Amino acid sequence: MTATPTARTLIWGGTVVTADQTFRADVYAEGGVIRAVGPDLEAPTGVTVVDAGGCYVMPGGIDPHTHMQLPFMGTVASDDFYSGTAAGLAGGTTMIIDFVIPNPKQNVMEAYRTWRGWAEKAAADYSFHVAITWWDESVHADMGTLVRDHGVNSFKHFMAYKNAIMCDDEVLVNSFSRALELGAMPTVHAENGELVFQLQKQLLAQGLTGPEAHPLSRPTAVEGEAANRAIQIAKVLGVPLYIVHVSCREALEAIARGRMDGHRVYGEVLAGHLLVDDSVYRHPDFDVAAAHVMSPPFRPKEHQAALWHGLQSGTLHTTATDHCCFCAPQKAAGRNDFSRIPNGTGGVEDRMAVLWHHGVNSGRLTMNEFVKVTSANAAQIFNIYPRKGTVAVGADADLVVWDPAATKTISARTHHQNADYNIFEGMEVRGLPRVTLTAGQIAWQDGDLRAVRGAGRYVNRPAFAPGFDAAAKRREALRPEGVDRG
Amino acid sequence: MTATPTARTLIWGGTVVTADQTFRADVYAEGGVIRAVGPDLEAPTGVTVVDAGGCYVMPGGIDPHTHMQLPFMGTVASDDFYSGTAAGLAGGTTMIIDFVIPNPKQNVMEAYRTWRGWAEKAAADYSFHVAITWWDESVHADMGTLVRDHGVNSFKHFMAYKNAIMCDDEVLVNSFSRALELGAMPTVHAENGELVFQLQKQLLAQGLTGPEAHPLSRPTAVEGEAANRAIQIAKVLGVPLYIVHVSCREALEAIARGRMDGHRVYGEVLAGHLLVDDSVYRHPDFDVAAAHVMSPPFRPKEHQAALWHGLQSGTLHTTATDHCCFCAPQKAAGRNDFSRIPNGTGGVEDRMAVLWHHGVNSGRLTMNEFVKVTSANAAQIFNIYPRKGTVAVGADADLVVWDPAATKTISARTHHQNADYNIFEGMEVRGLPRVTLTAGQIAWQDGDLRAVRGAGRYVNRPAFAPGFDAAAKRREALRPEGVDRG
Amino acid sequence: MTATPTARTLIWGGTVVTADQTFRADVYAEGGVIRAVGPDLEAPTGVTVVDAGGCYVMPGGIDPHTHMQLPFMGTVASDDFYSGTAAGLAGGTTMIIDFVIPNPKQNVMEAYRTWRGWAEKAAADYSFHVAITWWDESVHADMGTLVRDHGVNSFKHFMAYKNAIMCDDEVLVNSFSRALELGAMPTVHAENGELVFQLQKQLLAQGLTGPEAHPLSRPTAVEGEAANRAIQIAKVLGVPLYIVHVSCREALEAIARGRMDGHRVYGEVLAGHLLVDDSVYRHPDFDVAAAHVMSPPFRPKEHQAALWHGLQSGTLHTTATDHCCFCAPQKAAGRNDFSRIPNGTGGVEDRMAVLWHHGVNSGRLTMNEFVKVTSANAAQIFNIYPRKGTVAVGADADLVVWDPAATKTISARTHHQNADYNIFEGMEVRGLPRVTLTAGQIAWQDGDLRAVRGAGRYVNRPAFAPGFDAAAKRREALRPEGVDRG
Amino acid sequence: MTATPTARTLIWGGTVVTADQTFRADVYAEGGVIRAVGPDLEAPTGVTVVDAGGCYVMPGGIDPHTHMQLPFMGTVASDDFYSGTAAGLAGGTTMIIDFVIPNPKQNVMEAYRTWRGWAEKAAADYSFHVAITWWDESVHADMGTLVRDHGVNSFKHFMAYKNAIMCDDEVLVNSFSRALELGAMPTVHAENGELVFQLQKQLLAQGLTGPEAHPLSRPTAVEGEAANRAIQIAKVLGVPLYIVHVSCREALEAIARGRMDGHRVYGEVLAGHLLVDDSVYRHPDFDVAAAHVMSPPFRPKEHQAALWHGLQSGTLHTTATDHCCFCAPQKAAGRNDFSRIPNGTGGVEDRMAVLWHHGVNSGRLTMNEFVKVTSANAAQIFNIYPRKGTVAVGADADLVVWDPAATKTISARTHHQNADYNIFEGMEVRGLPRVTLTAGQIAWQDGDLRAVRGAGRYVNRPAFAPGFDAAAKRREALRPEGVDRG
Ligand SMILES: [Zn+2]
Ligand SMILES: [Zn+2]
Ligand SMILES: [Zn+2]
Ligand SMILES: [Zn+2]
Ligand SMILES: [Zn+2]
Ligand SMILES: [Zn+2]
Ligand SMILES: [Zn+2]
Ligand SMILES: [Zn+2]
Repeated sequence: MTATPTARTLIWGGTVVTADQTFRADVYAEGGVIRAVGPDLEAPTGVTVVDAGGCYVMPGGIDPHTHMQLPFMGTVASDDFYSGTAAGLAGGTTMIIDFVIPNPKQNVMEAYRTWRGWAEKAAADYSFHVAITWWDESVHADMGTLVRDHGVNSFKHFMAYKNAIMCDDEVLVNSFSRALELGAMPTVHAENGELVFQLQKQLLAQGLTGPEAHPLSRPTAVEGEAANRAIQIAKVLGVPLYIVHVSCREALEAIARGRMDGHRVYGEVLAGHLLVDDSVYRHPDFDVAAAHVMSPPFRPKEHQAALWHGLQSGTLHTTATDHCCFCAPQKAAGRNDFSRIPNGTGGVEDRMAVLWHHGVNSGRLTMNEFVKVTSANAAQIFNIYPRKGTVAVGADADLVVWDPAATKTISARTHHQNADYNIFEGMEVRGLPRVTLTAGQIAWQDGDLRAVRGAGRYVNRPAFAPGFDAAAKRREALRPEGVDRG
Repeated sequence: MTATPTARTLIWGGTVVTADQTFRADVYAEGGVIRAVGPDLEAPTGVTVVDAGGCYVMPGGIDPHTHMQLPFMGTVASDDFYSGTAAGLAGGTTMIIDFVIPNPKQNVMEAYRTWRGWAEKAAADYSFHVAITWWDESVHADMGTLVRDHGVNSFKHFMAYKNAIMCDDEVLVNSFSRALELGAMPTVHAENGELVFQLQKQLLAQGLTGPEAHPLSRPTAVEGEAANRAIQIAKVLGVPLYIVHVSCREALEAIARGRMDGHRVYGEVLAGHLLVDDSVYRHPDFDVAAAHVMSPPFRPKEHQAALWHGLQSGTLHTTATDHCCFCAPQKAAGRNDFSRIPNGTGGVEDRMAVLWHHGVNSGRLTMNEFVKVTSANAAQIFNIYPRKGTVAVGADADLVVWDPAATKTISARTHHQNADYNIFEGMEVRGLPRVTLTAGQIAWQDGDLRAVRGAGRYVNRPAFAPGFDAAAKRREALRPEGVDRG
Repeated sequence: MTATPTARTLIWGGTVVTADQTFRADVYAEGGVIRAVGPDLEAPTGVTVVDAGGCYVMPGGIDPHTHMQLPFMGTVASDDFYSGTAAGLAGGTTMIIDFVIPNPKQNVMEAYRTWRGWAEKAAADYSFHVAITWWDESVHADMGTLVRDHGVNSFKHFMAYKNAIMCDDEVLVNSFSRALELGAMPTVHAENGELVFQLQKQLLAQGLTGPEAHPLSRPTAVEGEAANRAIQIAKVLGVPLYIVHVSCREALEAIARGRMDGHRVYGEVLAGHLLVDDSVYRHPDFDVAAAHVMSPPFRPKEHQAALWHGLQSGTLHTTATDHCCFCAPQKAAGRNDFSRIPNGTGGVEDRMAVLWHHGVNSGRLTMNEFVKVTSANAAQIFNIYPRKGTVAVGADADLVVWDPAATKTISARTHHQNADYNIFEGMEVRGLPRVTLTAGQIAWQDGDLRAVRGAGRYVNRPAFAPGFDAAAKRREALRPEGVDRG
Repeated sequence: MTATPTARTLIWGGTVVTADQTFRADVYAEGGVIRAVGPDLEAPTGVTVVDAGGCYVMPGGIDPHTHMQLPFMGTVASDDFYSGTAAGLAGGTTMIIDFVIPNPKQNVMEAYRTWRGWAEKAAADYSFHVAITWWDESVHADMGTLVRDHGVNSFKHFMAYKNAIMCDDEVLVNSFSRALELGAMPTVHAENGELVFQLQKQLLAQGLTGPEAHPLSRPTAVEGEAANRAIQIAKVLGVPLYIVHVSCREALEAIARGRMDGHRVYGEVLAGHLLVDDSVYRHPDFDVAAAHVMSPPFRPKEHQAALWHGLQSGTLHTTATDHCCFCAPQKAAGRNDFSRIPNGTGGVEDRMAVLWHHGVNSGRLTMNEFVKVTSANAAQIFNIYPRKGTVAVGADADLVVWDPAATKTISARTHHQNADYNIFEGMEVRGLPRVTLTAGQIAWQDGDLRAVRGAGRYVNRPAFAPGFDAAAKRREALRPEGVDRG
């Protein structure tokens, strides 16, 4: 399914929705790229015509946070780069940004090459954040190599997972400083790992070994603290920052404070945190409770409204899934010790639909805001806009034809994810992809998944997004001067 | 200078900057509208070619808050619709939104027609917010007429100016409710008029009669209170809200709270409040001090950083000037009583340059953010996007060719505003319009002002911007149900 | 039961708890006043000895917000000054501050005299806030008379109840300014009355006529707005402020902002708002739902934690009940129109017990904090400390001997309030008064209520509490100077 | 000057001011303890009578943060326990709480004994916070020994000073957890040491070597971050927390958030941070600039109002000095490298006077609030109330007779501190101690300093202040339960 000059598609009769406009137009793609957007385009012979009547034509979703086939906690995530991206296409998502996660002391380039290899089977476009899990001169050098030569413009830092991949302040400061130099975005998983570690010990010592102890070991203050710390470090250094999976009011407010203070902080929220609450961990069936174990955990219901408002107000910018599936036999590793349950849940297939249903249908988001938070903002923050994230001449023909009247009931029995559980099980949604195109090729149409193994391309992301230039000017404007004391 | 099919212009060799992109492209306009945007456009014969080498090509500025030839406090603002819009063009601003302000009990349609008449001489496009200064059934009806038949989609409310045009809560609630019904945006001048009234009396009684008493009579708490009140009223009613001339941290924080609470509140900031502080009121020369009298007054310096951060973070959305010039002989009416100094300052000519210099050059804003806050956001909020506010095929050819290397020193001696004072007097700025086009016609080029009296057009603004649809869905989703007590 | 030199009581073997200390001591009272506090006091012959073994000896509760026998909404509150104060004594409350509420245009002194007459039957000490419900020169003068000659040091303002007793900003500013001059505390019932009025109309028009519409007509934003407005007005004028019945996070945050901004704002919270949530309004039985109708209404559960934290952190200062009982036949007046249900609930008898149980037993409050929020803070704010609010030589012998081990289940069937409903019905509490003394006389002992009709005394409250002196110095320090422009 | 049963003093004719009252009373002390407080006390023969006419009689000041003769940064603070406490007495301060600071790996008990030895020469009462600078089982055990056997109820943690005494999160969590168990208060110096370390390196590398680089290396965000981190850690663990030397709005707001969230967080502010701003670091004279080098540094002026408001509103609780003097030759160690200037400034002598002048005289604080923030609150937080912190029978006769009319100009030329510089140099103050008594002995009278070397006593502070009991009940109330999945 490699895009070739011969692949030609006309999306006809729809209403184009982008981050800033809504207008009637047809869209013509050729060679994987949009060639025309306008009313009443004519279809050259041989063109595949997609009927978009009654539908919205939008940029395909970008999920900026997935973990396909991740080796983690002694097992490997069940969706690989093919099955995971294919499921994404079924749901209208045409690109993922996954993570390279070196072990501490592992050579970063080596890890990078490993993940690149795994990803070759992807059915949709992809890119990689690279995690910085330790520090020495080689890591410093490899960050430069990745940015200059490999199209990486973001680095991930885990503030949790003590004795594994956790960064202390020294690594954070070193890596953030290096990222600033390189024009690359630091990102953080914000939880205070020391507190999690101690709380896990305390809870187990008290005999609280079940999944209900998981959220108790990671209360919202643990996330709020780490988010605030990362933001203040970034602010002091003058580097923008992106916070993954913001799940609670405290972290959201830390972002709001940072932004009101003039700092470029971006926040990502997961579809799950918007819609699932922490009562799941007290489910009497271990498998159900364990299926929801991820970090940060699902939160008390009152946080959900705050997160939605964060999206609407521009305090949060992107939606993701942290897609990282483990099946029941894998989750069972923690049957007697919640801290051993592999952390992760799925969602790459459902994000667009649940965001549309609970966002647009309920009036929380306009359609244009929907495009922003599912696609355009991620493209802008990670500097691949307007190649991705919009419907415009010259952009990649990664598109979704969205039928606002279509309905379904989400279920593990029918989803395309390689997972035995779906955290949105039983949820009825209105608004679904009729057709998904990746690089101009139809990958999903009316329930028929035509994903092609290996058709996805690695997307190079250039450094120095606009905010980095502004940050450099700001630092220059504020450069301190010494006092001449003769 | 009426735009005709024969007016053809090619802007060649520049870099287009919009709210979301920066790219090398030529721009071709014909009949007042952009016909092509792309690299290496060919110039048909007879086309006027504008050399944009080394320059940025951006949508012309929209100043959403001006008062040309306003009758106010016993006199009339010195810039009329021609001189004011011409000065705007000299500075890169191609559209203003002015205000129709009926006297209490004056028929609203009559006032509207009066202002439409005055505006016919405008050299650039314009539109009108209509102020609601009193309430009865005729006002209710006229709001409908204005929205349906006259392209008005915003209504202004003064919470200050007691015994004149001030609205009490009853008028606010009635008018906001009506605006919601009509899909029109309520806007407010937020100052608690009762407090201003009492403080003026107290200060005068204490013998504080000079301009230094002006800011004392309108402290920031007075603005913060009113902003919060308007926001909460709008929130309870479920109608979006736009707050004009936010000048202080308290009002800004009220907006931030409203937005974090899920409400669509928009904020406007004046160039003056970003850059001028309240020390001006203690100037020993009455004329200088009085020249700065406007409401809300300039504020202690520490508010300026907060306002800049508000713009950058998306808590404030537009920049304006509240352009309303009075010359020294007019200001002298309040020589012995500060409360009689006509309130108003200029700025329509300088806004773009000072925003660029202090915003973009100093790293507070990216160029794209500059476009947002000087043009695109106003166009979106007042629902004339993408006709205005962007550089795209089909948009009005209201453009500015911005030379980032050009410099000047702002001065009343050289400005084009019909005013004897400039609040930015002596400020050196880098970054100026080389060429301004209105409807595809060159109105300013290399220091030559070619504004044409009457060339400006009235811009109809449709109701029901996207946020209104979302608000309606939200109200529907939250509609309460009664308890059946059979 | 008038206190005479011959009434002598020794409270023996207990632990004294005050706002700042906890210590073993006996307490000896004579002539209504505490004469000795210390270990191992000897009992003169003829002294009544109260065994306080295992108990805490604390200042009796002060309920700073009650409405005994209030004429309101066409009926009269069912507890009169005798039955209401007697019920208070049964619960450990030894003083109330009630409200004189003149009708608009009613002479204030006349209303004051009316209430003084009604109150003569009180069994415990009492005082009066006087409401300012309208404004003219006579009101201005009467405020002076009340402060100088009648021991009134606080004035109440209703920001709700449009077309009845609501104050607009003009009355607020006039009255607050006058209070400042007199050294008297302004207090407000903070709800935006215009919004309530409009929401009531809208809800009734939608057919929502039952008690479930009551909270919908008074959402938290309505309270937060009014609280913020009153605080900002007080701040601008430089007068301290006390906000009655703070029921929601928004109002609490307005207080916190005011205090962080250097302004002396005090907040009161009702026992009901700490413990009852808004689900009661959807009760299928009209009588039950209507029994809870009061303003501000009970709130969604998440506000309760915020209110408790407010008490603990010192953002809220006092606890009260707004005791104002109406029985089912009275509430039935609003059977077909929720806006006609008489607003009010009881609680004067239960406040101390529910505060102890949910405050002290659950670790939200220390015992000393309990004394602060039930007694000492009210005495200090309303300037009757240390006559009231502490256990010390010279203080009134208004005391409660508190048995932390005693338990009961609250119920209308057993309470002493003249009311057919109890909003805490069925609540089990641990910690109850074993003995209550008013002016040294035993009024409650081991379940035996010995309240004496008419034994209560009117308590004069002097003006100019310490905060007023500080406020005066602050205004002096900040007095502006004019600019000499010779 | 040891207090003996024969030392008898009558303070006659004054007005007693405590945290909660102001009243005319004489005070009689014998044996170092207050024996009577009341009007018209009779003077037994042989009693020393102190004329307090026109004066206020208040509890002596407690400075909860001093470093006498501290070995630090290669030198030793110039005031020892004698000269420092004597200077305190000259200014009305009758007790200090100093710090035992073990080196990393140093045995904690050994350090404790060293400091106890140094302190024997003190002229006023004293106590010690003990710093936890590292962690192992011996430290865990020594904390217990100190609390149980040595009257220590507070432990200090430095979040700054990397590669020296800095704690990482692991030490913080371990020590806070241990403190909770012991009923002892954790305290923190809140600055992110990693950021300070990196900023120092960067600034030196840029050639910024003078004292003006000191504040640049420790911006307010560095303090705000650490304060927030410590608070969140304490909150998660459920242990109260005390933050020393809060110097900026960010840290203050972190405390306010913690308190509004229901957590017992206390804040201390230094007299210097209330009154000195960061312009001092740009003084052209190195000695002057270096004399102000302390951490956290003095801040931009706008933070001062926030700190005053914090004191007034109860968000900050105590005032201190961090008294730690180094003379010019000592400061000269950092002539070529600001990071080597010994950190510290004086103030133990001036705190009371500057607080009175700028607090009480200017209306920021009432007199009772002055007593709270200079004495009573420290006594309560560190659990030595009412032995210290009030004027009452049974309390230590540590008293100050305060003359509100006395004036002086503060100067290093006349102060009693062993220091060549005074950060309040030239400040005129009104309100000074006429007489200071320590344990009933006159140590300062009308300009005559009669401090006695070694007269001061070590003050044992019991564990489990009331807040700890409440915290324990709260944890019990919130104890989670497991899910039975049988
Ligand atoms: Zn994560
Ligand atoms: Zn992840
Ligand atoms: Zn205005
Ligand atoms: Zn205006
Ligand atoms: Zn009320
Ligand atoms: Zn009431
Ligand atoms: Zn320190
Ligand atoms: Zn220190």
